Amino acid sequence: MKTETYRVKVGQKVKLSDWNTDDNAGLKKREGKKRAKALQDELALWQERLYAESGQALLVVLQARDAGGKDGTVKHVFDAFNPNGIQVANFKVPTEDEQAHDFLWRVHAKTPRKGMIAVFNRSHYEDVLVTRVHDLIDRPTAQRRLEHIQRFEELLTDSGTRVLKFYLHVSKDEQKERLQARLDDPEKLWKFSEADLAERGHWEAYTRAFQDALTTSTVAAPWYVIPADHKWFRNLLISEILLETLKDMNPDFPETNLNPKKITIE
Amino acid sequence: MKTETYRVKVGQKVKLSDWNTDDNAGLKKREGKKRAKALQDELALWQERLYAESGQALLVVLQARDAGGKDGTVKHVFDAFNPNGIQVANFKVPTEDEQAHDFLWRVHAKTPRKGMIAVFNRSHYEDVLVTRVHDLIDRPTAQRRLEHIQRFEELLTDSGTRVLKFYLHVSKDEQKERLQARLDDPEKLWKFSEADLAERGHWEAYTRAFQDALTTSTVAAPWYVIPADHKWFRNLLISEILLETLKDMNPDFPETNLNPKKITIE
Repeated sequence: MKTETYRVKVGQKVKLSDWNTDDNAGLKKREGKKRAKALQDELALWQERLYAESGQALLVVLQARDAGGKDGTVKHVFDAFNPNGIQVANFKVPTEDEQAHDFLWRVHAKTPRKGMIAVFNRSHYEDVLVTRVHDLIDRPTAQRRLEHIQRFEELLTDSGTRVLKFYLHVSKDEQKERLQARLDDPEKLWKFSEADLAERGHWEAYTRAFQDALTTSTVAAPWYVIPADHKWFRNLLISEILLETLKDMNPDFPETNLNPKKITIE
Repeated sequence: MKTETYRVKVGQKVKLSDWNTDDNAGLKKREGKKRAKALQDELALWQERLYAESGQALLVVLQARDAGGKDGTVKHVFDAFNPNGIQVANFKVPTEDEQAHDFLWRVHAKTPRKGMIAVFNRSHYEDVLVTRVHDLIDRPTAQRRLEHIQRFEELLTDSGTRVLKFYLHVSKDEQKERLQARLDDPEKLWKFSEADLAERGHWEAYTRAFQDALTTSTVAAPWYVIPADHKWFRNLLISEILLETLKDMNPDFPETNLNPKKITIE
C-alpha cells in the first residue's frame, strides 16, 4: 500500500474537501482485515526490538472530530503491542493546574521514554482546535502556537523520538451514523454527549482549524490524513504506517559484553 | 477453577515450600490455553464496563523472583484489555528524587484513576524485598513498612480501588532453565543480567522476605500465590482471578438523563 499518498507534504496546504473519507485503496473489507491481522504480529516483533534497544521512542498523535474513531483505533490497532511498552494518554479539558502552565506543559510530561510507544488520544493540537473554533484565541495566537508545536516536536525528534500524527478523516454523514448508533445502543449511550452535537454544528470551523493544524507536517513529524469512514481501512492504513515507521527506525537488540558461553548458572 | 485455594488468608503465615510451583489443577496445557483465550473476551467486556462507569479502579501488583514471569504475564494476560483503559508501571531502582521521598510516594503517583486498571510490574513491595535481602533495612523497619503498606492499600480500597497482589511462584530449577534460555537465544540475551545470578544466590533470604510480604493479605487487597512453573497455568489462573474480581466489583454502564428518542442529529 502506498502510504505516502496519505501523508501531508512539508509546506502543503491541505483542503480537506479534496481528500476522500471513504477511500479503501481498492481493497475488499475481508482482505483488508486479514492483512491488518497479519500486521499485528509484525508490529509486536518490532516493538520488542524498540523496547530492548531503549534508544528511541515513538509518539503517536490521534486527532479527529467526535466519533471520528480515536478510541476504536487505540482498541483495534494498538492492542497489537505488549502493554508493558505502550502508554496511552487521554487529554481532556485542562485542569486548573494545567491551565496555569503553558499549553505544552501537560503533554510534555506524557512523552514516551526511550524504548516506549506513547499514544496521545487528543493532544496539544486541541489547543489550536477547540480553542480556535470557540474563539478563545485569535488566529495570530493559533499561528504562534503552531510554531511552538513545531519547535516542541523538533525537540522530541532531535532526542530520538519519532512523531506520527494521524487525522482521522470522517464525513459528516458518517459522523451522524455513529452518533446515532450511540443513541440506539444502551451499551454505547454512555459515550454520547450532547456537547458533541454542539461541536457538530461547528463543522466548517473545525475543518478550517484542522487544515491549519495540518501545516505542521514535517519529515520527522508528519501528518497523515486517514480516510476513516471505513473502520477496517483506517485500522489497516495506520498499521501499515506504524510498521513502515518502526522498520525505518530500525531498532535492534542491544549489544552486550557478555559471553554467554562463559556463564554458568549454579 | 477454585481460585481461593491460591489466596493467602488474612493472618495466615505462608511457608512457600509448602506451596506447589508446578500445579496445573489437573488441566492439560491445551485445554488450559483454550480456556484462557476464551476468558480474554470476557475480561475485555468487563473492562469496558469499568471504564464506562468510571466509579471504581483496579490495581494489580506483580511480584516475583527474576525470570518469574512478570513480563510474560503483562504480555499474555493484560493484552486482553483495551490499551485506553490500562496503565503498566515499571518500578526500577529509585531515582535520587524518589529516594528523597517516603517509599510510597512514587507508587502513589501511579495508582489508577477511576475507570482504569493499573499494573505494577514490581511495586512498593520491592522496598521490603531487595532492601531486606541486602540488609539495607533491618527487620523491624521492614515490619514497620509492611504496616505502612497495609494502611496505604486500605486508603486505596476505601476509595474504590480494588487491589490484587500476585506472587508468581517458580522453583529454583525453573528459574535456572529460564535464565539459561536467555543466554542461549541471541534475541533474549538483552534480558539477561549478571545481577540476576547474584540475586539467585540469595534464594532463601528472598523466600523469607516474600513470606513476610505475604502477611499483608487482606480481604480487600489479597495476595495470591500463583504456581508459575507452567506459564500457561499462570496465565489462566490470573485471568480467572481477574474475571472473578471484575464480576464481583460489578461495574455497570452509567445512568444517563438523556432520552435518546428525543434527540435528533441534524
